[in-house]
Amino acid sequence: MSAQNPLFIPGPTNIPDRIRKACDMQTIDHRSPAFARVFKPAIAGVKRVLGMGAGEVFIFPSTGTGGWEAAVSNTLSPGDTLLAARFGMFSHRWIDLCQRHGLNVQVIEAPWGQGAPLAAIEAALRADTGHAIRVVLATHNETATGVRSDIAGIRRALDAAGHPALLFVDGVSSIGSMPFDMAGWGVDVAVAGSQKGFMLPAGLAILGVSPKALAAIETATLPRTFFDFRDMAKAYVAGGYPYTPAVGLIAGLAEAVEMLEEEGLEAVYARHHRLAEGVRRAVAAWGMRPCAASADLYSDTVTAVLVPEGCNGTDLVRLAADKYRVAFGVGLGEVAGRVFRIGHLGSLTDVMVLAGLATAEMCMADLGWPVRLGSGVAAAQEFYRGSVPAMLAAAA
Amino acid sequence: MSAQNPLFIPGPTNIPDRIRKACDMQTIDHRSPAFARVFKPAIAGVKRVLGMGAGEVFIFPSTGTGGWEAAVSNTLSPGDTLLAARFGMFSHRWIDLCQRHGLNVQVIEAPWGQGAPLAAIEAALRADTGHAIRVVLATHNETATGVRSDIAGIRRALDAAGHPALLFVDGVSSIGSMPFDMAGWGVDVAVAGSQKGFMLPAGLAILGVSPKALAAIETATLPRTFFDFRDMAKAYVAGGYPYTPAVGLIAGLAEAVEMLEEEGLEAVYARHHRLAEGVRRAVAAWGMRPCAASADLYSDTVTAVLVPEGCNGTDLVRLAADKYRVAFGVGLGEVAGRVFRIGHLGSLTDVMVLAGLATAEMCMADLGWPVRLGSGVAAAQEFYRGSVPAMLAAAA
Amino acid sequence: MSAQNPLFIPGPTNIPDRIRKACDMQTIDHRSPAFARVFKPAIAGVKRVLGMGAGEVFIFPSTGTGGWEAAVSNTLSPGDTLLAARFGMFSHRWIDLCQRHGLNVQVIEAPWGQGAPLAAIEAALRADTGHAIRVVLATHNETATGVRSDIAGIRRALDAAGHPALLFVDGVSSIGSMPFDMAGWGVDVAVAGSQKGFMLPAGLAILGVSPKALAAIETATLPRTFFDFRDMAKAYVAGGYPYTPAVGLIAGLAEAVEMLEEEGLEAVYARHHRLAEGVRRAVAAWGMRPCAASADLYSDTVTAVLVPEGCNGTDLVRLAADKYRVAFGVGLGEVAGRVFRIGHLGSLTDVMVLAGLATAEMCMADLGWPVRLGSGVAAAQEFYRGSVPAMLAAAA
Amino acid sequence: MSAQNPLFIPGPTNIPDRIRKACDMQTIDHRSPAFARVFKPAIAGVKRVLGMGAGEVFIFPSTGTGGWEAAVSNTLSPGDTLLAARFGMFSHRWIDLCQRHGLNVQVIEAPWGQGAPLAAIEAALRADTGHAIRVVLATHNETATGVRSDIAGIRRALDAAGHPALLFVDGVSSIGSMPFDMAGWGVDVAVAGSQKGFMLPAGLAILGVSPKALAAIETATLPRTFFDFRDMAKAYVAGGYPYTPAVGLIAGLAEAVEMLEEEGLEAVYARHHRLAEGVRRAVAAWGMRPCAASADLYSDTVTAVLVPEGCNGTDLVRLAADKYRVAFGVGLGEVAGRVFRIGHLGSLTDVMVLAGLATAEMCMADLGWPVRLGSGVAAAQEFYRGSVPAMLAAAA
Repeated sequence: MSAQNPLFIPGPTNIPDRIRKACDMQTIDHRSPAFARVFKPAIAGVKRVLGMGAGEVFIFPSTGTGGWEAAVSNTLSPGDTLLAARFGMFSHRWIDLCQRHGLNVQVIEAPWGQGAPLAAIEAALRADTGHAIRVVLATHNETATGVRSDIAGIRRALDAAGHPALLFVDGVSSIGSMPFDMAGWGVDVAVAGSQKGFMLPAGLAILGVSPKALAAIETATLPRTFFDFRDMAKAYVAGGYPYTPAVGLIAGLAEAVEMLEEEGLEAVYARHHRLAEGVRRAVAAWGMRPCAASADLYSDTVTAVLVPEGCNGTDLVRLAADKYRVAFGVGLGEVAGRVFRIGHLGSLTDVMVLAGLATAEMCMADLGWPVRLGSGVAAAQEFYRGSVPAMLAAAA
Repeated sequence: MSAQNPLFIPGPTNIPDRIRKACDMQTIDHRSPAFARVFKPAIAGVKRVLGMGAGEVFIFPSTGTGGWEAAVSNTLSPGDTLLAARFGMFSHRWIDLCQRHGLNVQVIEAPWGQGAPLAAIEAALRADTGHAIRVVLATHNETATGVRSDIAGIRRALDAAGHPALLFVDGVSSIGSMPFDMAGWGVDVAVAGSQKGFMLPAGLAILGVSPKALAAIETATLPRTFFDFRDMAKAYVAGGYPYTPAVGLIAGLAEAVEMLEEEGLEAVYARHHRLAEGVRRAVAAWGMRPCAASADLYSDTVTAVLVPEGCNGTDLVRLAADKYRVAFGVGLGEVAGRVFRIGHLGSLTDVMVLAGLATAEMCMADLGWPVRLGSGVAAAQEFYRGSVPAMLAAAA
Repeated sequence: MSAQNPLFIPGPTNIPDRIRKACDMQTIDHRSPAFARVFKPAIAGVKRVLGMGAGEVFIFPSTGTGGWEAAVSNTLSPGDTLLAARFGMFSHRWIDLCQRHGLNVQVIEAPWGQGAPLAAIEAALRADTGHAIRVVLATHNETATGVRSDIAGIRRALDAAGHPALLFVDGVSSIGSMPFDMAGWGVDVAVAGSQKGFMLPAGLAILGVSPKALAAIETATLPRTFFDFRDMAKAYVAGGYPYTPAVGLIAGLAEAVEMLEEEGLEAVYARHHRLAEGVRRAVAAWGMRPCAASADLYSDTVTAVLVPEGCNGTDLVRLAADKYRVAFGVGLGEVAGRVFRIGHLGSLTDVMVLAGLATAEMCMADLGWPVRLGSGVAAAQEFYRGSVPAMLAAAA
Repeated sequence: MSAQNPLFIPGPTNIPDRIRKACDMQTIDHRSPAFARVFKPAIAGVKRVLGMGAGEVFIFPSTGTGGWEAAVSNTLSPGDTLLAARFGMFSHRWIDLCQRHGLNVQVIEAPWGQGAPLAAIEAALRADTGHAIRVVLATHNETATGVRSDIAGIRRALDAAGHPALLFVDGVSSIGSMPFDMAGWGVDVAVAGSQKGFMLPAGLAILGVSPKALAAIETATLPRTFFDFRDMAKAYVAGGYPYTPAVGLIAGLAEAVEMLEEEGLEAVYARHHRLAEGVRRAVAAWGMRPCAASADLYSDTVTAVLVPEGCNGTDLVRLAADKYRVAFGVGLGEVAGRVFRIGHLGSLTDVMVLAGLATAEMCMADLGWPVRLGSGVAAAQEFYRGSVPAMLAAAA
């Protein structure tokens, strides 16, 4: 019997039936007006979820990594300088991508478990009096450590330093699940993927691009064709695509936005916060703590749980998969073994989270970790039962 | 956000993707050989799940109730006598159906929570020296009380009394989930539905009919056309159906049998027993007990939980649905309010059951019942983690 | 490679993706309010498609045959008299069902290819001065011969004779595809199925029941439980069902009505008429003619094509299935071999019909029939290209 | 009513149900062994379809354009020289991509309607005595003109010239539909997409890479990360992916290969040839001819039909879409207006093709083109009915 247990990896997420059905469509002629009827609502919906003002949304048949590449290859030239903090696996990877594309990344190292170091960023910007830094890279939600950084704070740092650099934000594991205010925060490129808050299968890189970033396209000389914003923009004008689009995923994206907006974006964010808080109550009841160094850094989409001395988080993940057919995330890079990760984003309910917590506890008991069965579950139950949104109770 | 929580009603059950895909098929010509390629494996598979010897399987686009009607209307004539015990809502309903069809049912009343009273049945059969009783009706698994009756025992009673009556068994909520031995138990008509152990949507009445029951068709004068075994048998010979069959459901039934047999029928039964035992451990930890009067009667597909004095099981079911979007079953008939029911059959895992138990506990706390959060979950966790089948662990 | 050719059997029909997706749903608790949200729109929609006034709609997990049985078993008692004309396989079968239920059917035989003989019906009604006839049965669309009868004419006959008999109409292969005016025609029970004009898989018997027919329920003594209107009506009051409903099919039925009404019922009927007319032009171009004796009898959902002397329609159907993987209908009963049938109902387009006509022509050539390749196609093309609805052209 | 007409664009193609179901899967943990169970059969299957010897297959969440970019960015450095012939829109686009990546393309212009000019290629290679040419680009099937080039001939040219250049082939619209012999032809990189012969939605770039091309990776300095073969190869070793894979499409790809191999690759190619030949018979009957200059160049996946003087192919395509809801392809670039294109690849039958031909004829009549209705259909019918594969006839 193949299990039907929910997943607790920090993406891809559990896909709702409604979205699976929207994606599962027969071929249409993508050069006909039928395509625009699918595409336009998706574009418009993404703009609302991103909180964009002016600017453009580009959707590539690709992934978040492709989104990172599209962001820099469309706006920069070889040798250009970026500023970035490294405090987890995903901030590291974007830096690495830039370096492989011949860009000069000024890296601020920060401890894993911390967020983007605002003071250091501001200092670096102030020091860059010649404005060599063309772009500041920021990872909104560091999926490896469960840390949410303060993007508004980076914007304040840029403004305080009077620095004209563009602000590029990796929102792959935050957008659609946690508040994102592209216009308010002055984000120039926001990168999202289909498989996290949008609850779709992987396969789309989704980018919001500000007018300021669009202006940088013309002078950027990094080579690109597949990811070229220019071709995409030209094709948009004709209601089309420079090559064959992933129509089903785009239809699913439109449906996802419709689902998010039916629930209400604020309600979606509140739900993620509530689910995350239940997980954190359980973690505390287990006598453990999140990898994120302080409460202001806690991610609402993933919790990296620091395991007790002498325990190995990867053992728990393997056991959960092998014995109970439940998927958690292992620790990556610097925190490999030291954490296991519970993803709690996308289409998820309190009841599903309780199943995950109960499973983690069984694994802990199996591994001889000093945790009492039911303890974390009870803490989460107590929290969840006291925090059901009025809306939900009413609708029921 | 529409919940994706598992269901804990005692059927219809959670439908696996694989079965949904098998059911979701484009129309084929049901008068062409393509239909036989769908139909024959379904028939053959059902025979194996029923443990049939000789005889025939009939599948009607209908439900279990239709199966009851087909069983009696094909084998009996107005005024014929049946013997039946009543000890729950579903045994009651079959009796009621017979009476509405002009049959004479000799009813043995038994307390709800008990199973078929073997001694009383044997006594009634021995008393029927003229063999007026044409059929003994038995409800294998009384879904209202979570009681499994001893069908082999009824066969022994018939044999001990030297009585030639036919034995008709309602296995709607047992077949495919608990051992069923049609040939071994000498069952003449077994009635199943698609929406329980077969994990399909409702829409099929599935009947196994012994040669002895088939012989009764010719003399039976109760009117029937839609449910007429004769039309069905005649059409089978031509590889077809007397009217338009529910092809998708039949394809799904074949797939269901394939899934059951891939897991292994014994393993399927063991899984249901293990899941049920975990539920019973939780019930005990809550300080409650099953409605089933003794351990030998415990159903492995549904547990009717007797609630504490002053509590109302229906309140819990309503609250679970409204506040947590989780479906349990209410008490029916004589035990309305006095129990709530946890269905644990079909496509289900230990992890899913834990989600249900955790939800029930939250409701209990919400309702002020004297139960500690996490207590039942912990008892079930302890049991589950010690009882993972070797097979599963190895396959992982 | 499994073919994806459209079907041309007169039901079940090609199922649109949108309906397949609506049917393919995860289990919901059919005793919760969620069920009413699926069920009520389906009931309301069926009423509109039937053109009902007051009365009730009942939906059984069954088929059209079950609908026939429900109609008579809920309203009549053993020995009651009905009046019916027999002029094809489906009118024959309903008569047979009645007889097997102990009813007395006064049968008017009419040639296959003719419709309900209005004069003879009126004469029989006038002759029945004692009003022994309780019900007049009528087959709106005789699927075996492709003949549409004049139901309004039967109502006029009843009125002219001043006869109080109920009027029961088999609309299985007409409702949803050809105009049906239950209130205007004074129909007391209309029987439909899911798998024709509603474009669903088989599995639902759908009945519209007038207040006059509902009144007959109380005195009817034919035995029934599964099909009992009383149980159904009682359960409706509580928003439910007397047993487990086929929720997915009911959801699909609601979606089907939505699709029909989006297109517009009049437009749906016009589309069927247009597709049928194209088929008839092709038939004429082949030098053949429909089995239906005159143009006023032509069905818009199925054409039974009389084959040339010395030819066998069944050969064509077999060859089409074996060689080209296209399904047509064979001749049944009296017209076996003398016709082959082209179903043109449900989700179908002119382009799909042309594929069917082209296939039939290839078979004719293969069989040595005296038909020129392309001749029927050309006649249909000429008709279709001149008759595209303005709406469609505009929407495009 | 949304049409269910088949598509006749030269990709994406009609998606069979079986593949849609394979693609439509719930999320699995792509870092668990479950992913390898999906991925490995896909990789192995693609190797067989490509006719690969040693080497590696890489699958990117992207499209054919991404495949072109991956091919060159992984093997070349800025300023490197390629040799390519331009004779249609797709050969043009690959050349353009190379130029935008700073590569030096030696372009041989050839008339649209011709294939790769073998003599000119061989001459250019012989002239390149210094072996500056690192790569020869070839478009196996030029989708714009319906021309198949002789890849074996290009290999012979390379060998005759004793030139060590790599041979890169765009097989996007040929692989899986027409014979492809990567090992036999000495192809170093073959580029395919998911949405043509593999019958999937767009979303995958599929590349077969020879050991010789793999050896070029280490010295290539064009920047790439998303498309980097090195990251992909490294991840493969661990059974995984460098980022989140498009699991559903990969599962669908495995299923596609299974379908192709169940039918038999030779039978698949023969089916495409047969369908194409029927189209060409129709074109001839219309008094027109393919854009492909001679029979040896005819593509079996798409026919670009040269329209009569004074007619505009784009008018036909628009009318077919607007009036009949059937999709054909417009002429692109140099042949815009001068042709319309009929795609006949992927999951398609003779019956479906006849529907397309009949539709094209109706449009021609509507537009006043000098074509008799039914004429092309009849020519295709005649051909199809005489050429049904024995296998199909037998299986039926």
